[in-house]
Amino acid sequence: MTIDHGALRVDIDRLVGRLDALGEIGAVLGPEGERGCARLALTDDDRLGRDLVIGWMRDLGLSVTIDAVGNVVGVRSGEDPSLAPVMMGSHIDTVRTGGRFDGNLGVLGGLEVVETLEQHGLRTQHPVAVAYFTNEEGARFQPDMLGSLVYVGGMALEEALDVRAADDGARLGDELARIGYAGPTPCPAAGAPHAFVELHIEQGPVLEDEGITIGVVTGVQGISWTELTITGRSAHAGTTPMRLRVDPGYVAAEITAGVRAIARQMGGSQVATVGRCEFSPNLVNVVPAKVTMTVDLRNTDEHLLQQAERRFEHLCETLAADEGVTVERRTLARFEPVEFDERMVDLVHATATRLGHSTLRMPSGAGHDAQMLARVCPTSMVFVPSVNGLSHNIAEFTGAADLQAGADVLLQVVLELARPVDPAV
Amino acid sequence: MTIDHGALRVDIDRLVGRLDALGEIGAVLGPEGERGCARLALTDDDRLGRDLVIGWMRDLGLSVTIDAVGNVVGVRSGEDPSLAPVMMGSHIDTVRTGGRFDGNLGVLGGLEVVETLEQHGLRTQHPVAVAYFTNEEGARFQPDMLGSLVYVGGMALEEALDVRAADDGARLGDELARIGYAGPTPCPAAGAPHAFVELHIEQGPVLEDEGITIGVVTGVQGISWTELTITGRSAHAGTTPMRLRVDPGYVAAEITAGVRAIARQMGGSQVATVGRCEFSPNLVNVVPAKVTMTVDLRNTDEHLLQQAERRFEHLCETLAADEGVTVERRTLARFEPVEFDERMVDLVHATATRLGHSTLRMPSGAGHDAQMLARVCPTSMVFVPSVNGLSHNIAEFTGAADLQAGADVLLQVVLELARPVDPAV
Repeated sequence: MTIDHGALRVDIDRLVGRLDALGEIGAVLGPEGERGCARLALTDDDRLGRDLVIGWMRDLGLSVTIDAVGNVVGVRSGEDPSLAPVMMGSHIDTVRTGGRFDGNLGVLGGLEVVETLEQHGLRTQHPVAVAYFTNEEGARFQPDMLGSLVYVGGMALEEALDVRAADDGARLGDELARIGYAGPTPCPAAGAPHAFVELHIEQGPVLEDEGITIGVVTGVQGISWTELTITGRSAHAGTTPMRLRVDPGYVAAEITAGVRAIARQMGGSQVATVGRCEFSPNLVNVVPAKVTMTVDLRNTDEHLLQQAERRFEHLCETLAADEGVTVERRTLARFEPVEFDERMVDLVHATATRLGHSTLRMPSGAGHDAQMLARVCPTSMVFVPSVNGLSHNIAEFTGAADLQAGADVLLQVVLELARPVDPAV
Repeated sequence: MTIDHGALRVDIDRLVGRLDALGEIGAVLGPEGERGCARLALTDDDRLGRDLVIGWMRDLGLSVTIDAVGNVVGVRSGEDPSLAPVMMGSHIDTVRTGGRFDGNLGVLGGLEVVETLEQHGLRTQHPVAVAYFTNEEGARFQPDMLGSLVYVGGMALEEALDVRAADDGARLGDELARIGYAGPTPCPAAGAPHAFVELHIEQGPVLEDEGITIGVVTGVQGISWTELTITGRSAHAGTTPMRLRVDPGYVAAEITAGVRAIARQMGGSQVATVGRCEFSPNLVNVVPAKVTMTVDLRNTDEHLLQQAERRFEHLCETLAADEGVTVERRTLARFEPVEFDERMVDLVHATATRLGHSTLRMPSGAGHDAQMLARVCPTSMVFVPSVNGLSHNIAEFTGAADLQAGADVLLQVVLELARPVDPAV
């Protein structure tokens, strides 16, 4: 008997069933019946979610390890014990007003791939693993992607365990122990996977806008976050002529419009966002004394990102000099862009095309565990569309057909990497 | 014996002494020893301040009346009982972080004028009155200038008494009664003054900036306050390309820069201020869903103010259409400009010039009781410089020489209006 590996498909009802079941833990209902999720890292709900997924792993016969920072890996053995596993995975923690797909899809999509292999009795040369990493969202502990960062040796374990929660000040190591997930397996991991593939919702509007089913992720944008404190001179809105004003609100406005113009002029993947802006004293008839604001710049190209940063800095300096305000800049975060392995990206692209799906090669604008794994092994990601581009939102949604398409691509990519062993051969 | 009326001057030490004494009630000390004042309308401290000033009025032999909304008028009789009084005055309530000059100077400057007349035994044909009006600041009860508004018949007494405090919800009429200032004199006043003159600090930087001692106030700017609610589409700062954004923060920025450009282009007295601006959800990596902001437009000319309003509205509509956001406009306040009586303005101007002071004809950018009195009698104001343009600030300050100059102009203007009677004639 031979199996037509290329014809294998996941069971979408089973995958949706697991997404729904996991989403019930920490479930949040929206005003219009949206089913969101609030399952923050290392909370009691996170424990329940972790327990549920480990139960499924064991049902599938996976060998489960929990490492010292709480990362969980379930391994299906391969025919050749000397080979490193092909790993799938993501995270199952959510933000406070999160959805049921962000992260969860990559983990449960991985389980669905394993179950499909099991169902067809299909063995592989490489082991196949499914992982979920601790505290990807960063909603409770900073930095985000902490678990995968420690997993690849990018952050010392001791430092990670000493991180304090933003909400209640709890120590990460204590919370891990409290929920029973301070595991015995060493972290960083002893060996790197053979490859890593993460299925994820896009969390943006591009695929839907262009009518594309599969995003072939080429890498992750570099991120530059700056907080500005602009100090001017508070003044009476009625009695202070325009020429005598030193108005930080005006400067904030020019910066907001200016970084948008920079992004528009640079084009490509360059984006610029002013997401936070606070006036002080924030009164209708008072020219503000101070404005704090943030500027988020991203590009897939480090050189271009630095160019955007220089233009932004020049803009701040020019406006400060013209208006007489002071503009203090503080870096909140800075990550270089990540480029995924070209052969891995091509494999995702070719596989999706073979399965008949429309594709778009695109960078990820958000951070993902995959960018950490890319430090130690060939890595790629598969994106599926997010309805209305929504994520980190209880209205986050991806339809069953798109979920199926993404999971099928994941399955076929993993089959290609893990080298199936035909039972008849 | 004749008196050289034109040579009469106030006693600046006496005036400063009264300002200091009244400023001790509700005194607030700043971090650098600034002596500010928090004496909100109809609080216990307001009662103590009112009592102190009435004591001074009685010491000077004035006949004191308290009306039904708590306005207090002290009258020095004139030689001709058929004539209406020449009235000076202002208010003695302050904002929460107020100074010792705003309002108080107009009242205590009036008392100083009366004391100077008394000291020299100088009688006048018209009675001379000093008034302080209830709740000018609007810091506790809305609207501001409430007492003078009711005094001139611009608001029904019953409506005013039913106003609730912004802080504790107390009813104005109850608070008046509680502090013993629900007086027996009818309000609105039975008859209009012969004229009204208000001495006040500028509360802005113009006089100091131009090195001028006396501001000859030509009127009060019209005010147009609008609250905007700009609704866009919240989106991920990394995953949402610039072309797919519907960003209310960007629109708020363009409006902020745009109304400034409108004011600059229109020139003259036109000012435009964005004092309040709030982003929601206000997160570094999220394109905001909603921004609320305020726009404060002022001009001395109603026609020009309407022009500014039309340009502002057009700006909002254009930006809303271009970006795809909705911009809701809500009028928070709208007052037409007030022009003071030309002969009164000329009298202040000529008097200040005769006394050797530099002068500038200027509108008031802030509201004052004088604009209410202008509805019923010839009215003008005398401005003296505010150090650093500061007001509604515990660092509010005006030097003794400027106080003296202003009070001398007030004295001479009142003498001219009240027609002195030479004892020898």
